Amino acid sequence: MSDIPSSHPRYRSLITREQLAAHTKTGVVSLEGLTSHGRGEAFDYLLGEKTSASALEAEKLAARVLLAAKHPVLSINGNTAALAAQEIAQLQKASGAEVEVNLFHRTEERIALVTNVLEEAGCIVSKGAVGRCVPLPHGRGLCRPEGIGSADVVLVPLEDGDRCEALVSMGKLVITVDLNPIDRTSKTASLPIVDEVTRALPNIAQECDRLKASGETISMPEIDARYFLRQAIKDMQEHLSHALD
Amino acid sequence: MSDIPSSHPRYRSLITREQLAAHTKTGVVSLEGLTSHGRGEAFDYLLGEKTSASALEAEKLAARVLLAAKHPVLSINGNTAALAAQEIAQLQKASGAEVEVNLFHRTEERIALVTNVLEEAGCIVSKGAVGRCVPLPHGRGLCRPEGIGSADVVLVPLEDGDRCEALVSMGKLVITVDLNPIDRTSKTASLPIVDEVTRALPNIAQECDRLKASGETISMPEIDARYFLRQAIKDMQEHLSHALD
Repeated sequence: MSDIPSSHPRYRSLITREQLAAHTKTGVVSLEGLTSHGRGEAFDYLLGEKTSASALEAEKLAARVLLAAKHPVLSINGNTAALAAQEIAQLQKASGAEVEVNLFHRTEERIALVTNVLEEAGCIVSKGAVGRCVPLPHGRGLCRPEGIGSADVVLVPLEDGDRCEALVSMGKLVITVDLNPIDRTSKTASLPIVDEVTRALPNIAQECDRLKASGETISMPEIDARYFLRQAIKDMQEHLSHALD
Repeated sequence: MSDIPSSHPRYRSLITREQLAAHTKTGVVSLEGLTSHGRGEAFDYLLGEKTSASALEAEKLAARVLLAAKHPVLSINGNTAALAAQEIAQLQKASGAEVEVNLFHRTEERIALVTNVLEEAGCIVSKGAVGRCVPLPHGRGLCRPEGIGSADVVLVPLEDGDRCEALVSMGKLVITVDLNPIDRTSKTASLPIVDEVTRALPNIAQECDRLKASGETISMPEIDARYFLRQAIKDMQEHLSHALD
């Protein structure tokens, strides 16, 4: 389908979009997921499309949180699986966290499709009966009672604000990966990582490996969530200041 | 398809996305168009989802430019038609500009579909043979020699940076409507309007009507394009400053 010439200055970004669009054909990514990806791209422009110093700090802290957790779960949706299945497998291996599929536009068929994408990349995906564990209406409140339902730490990349808030209200420590520092997802997160998901997850995995190799006893760290949001906002303001140079 | 509860705080925005997604089923909107809409949404968050004072200035100036033009053309793509067909019809009536369909992902079938959406909303769409009028490869260089090809003023809402630049290089006065003030589309435009398309087009139309009713002789105004970009950036920085309050 592509008629984008490789001479186009945004060639790589356009091709990533086409790949994500192709994933909608199979049902892994919902059409609304494409819009969501676009919002992420816009905020990533404002970060210069790279991991900021404070995002890297947040990622290192996330590694510590995952290793200190009693029952950490990576909650994965269609976009995250389509963009970063291999990075999730790497992080699961490094952190020992459970992987559970959780979709905003939930159908059994899509759950199976996303599970398949993850398993093909080497993830071990927890399956089984779901119940209304999260205080939200419709399919969005469903999850596995033995998975997300009883997790103490949940990492939710690219999550809806409503669901993030609900998980926090259940007393869980919620780590988000979201490029928008000013939406409810980032604002309500216990530990907001403002970075692109394929950059963030490998950084967390690498720090897990480093911490484990160090032999250090890992305890649950203090987290100043607002600090990470303030820094991301500062970075964006700074980027905007030079955008017309 | 919708299982979004009306209690969701972003209900309206989610429903607009679903409507745009539904337009991809017919082919009016390309899948990449959904990503593009998402980028716009993100920048609109940073404008507080309203027309800024400087955007309104730019819209009033655009009305003057369209009325002073010898041969103004509104270049309409799938997203613009899906979001704002009635607003385009209103602006065509108020400005007397020609309406031509121009697609990034161009096929004859999509041209016909987008034309149909516009005509149903009351637009008079110029049709006929196209040629490679714009110095760009593939379908993106095609337009009507008697339309965009010979226009002195072209309004291109939601346009690709590459094409905007090509039109400017042909000596045309290019008015853009784009929520991102720091991409090439806005930076290369002769008159960049940093606003959401369904807010911007009625403002331009209304000013056309006012100017015509005033009896004033309309001449081509001076335009300080950078001023509009600087103001939009300032507004976004300001919004970010208060985003955590």
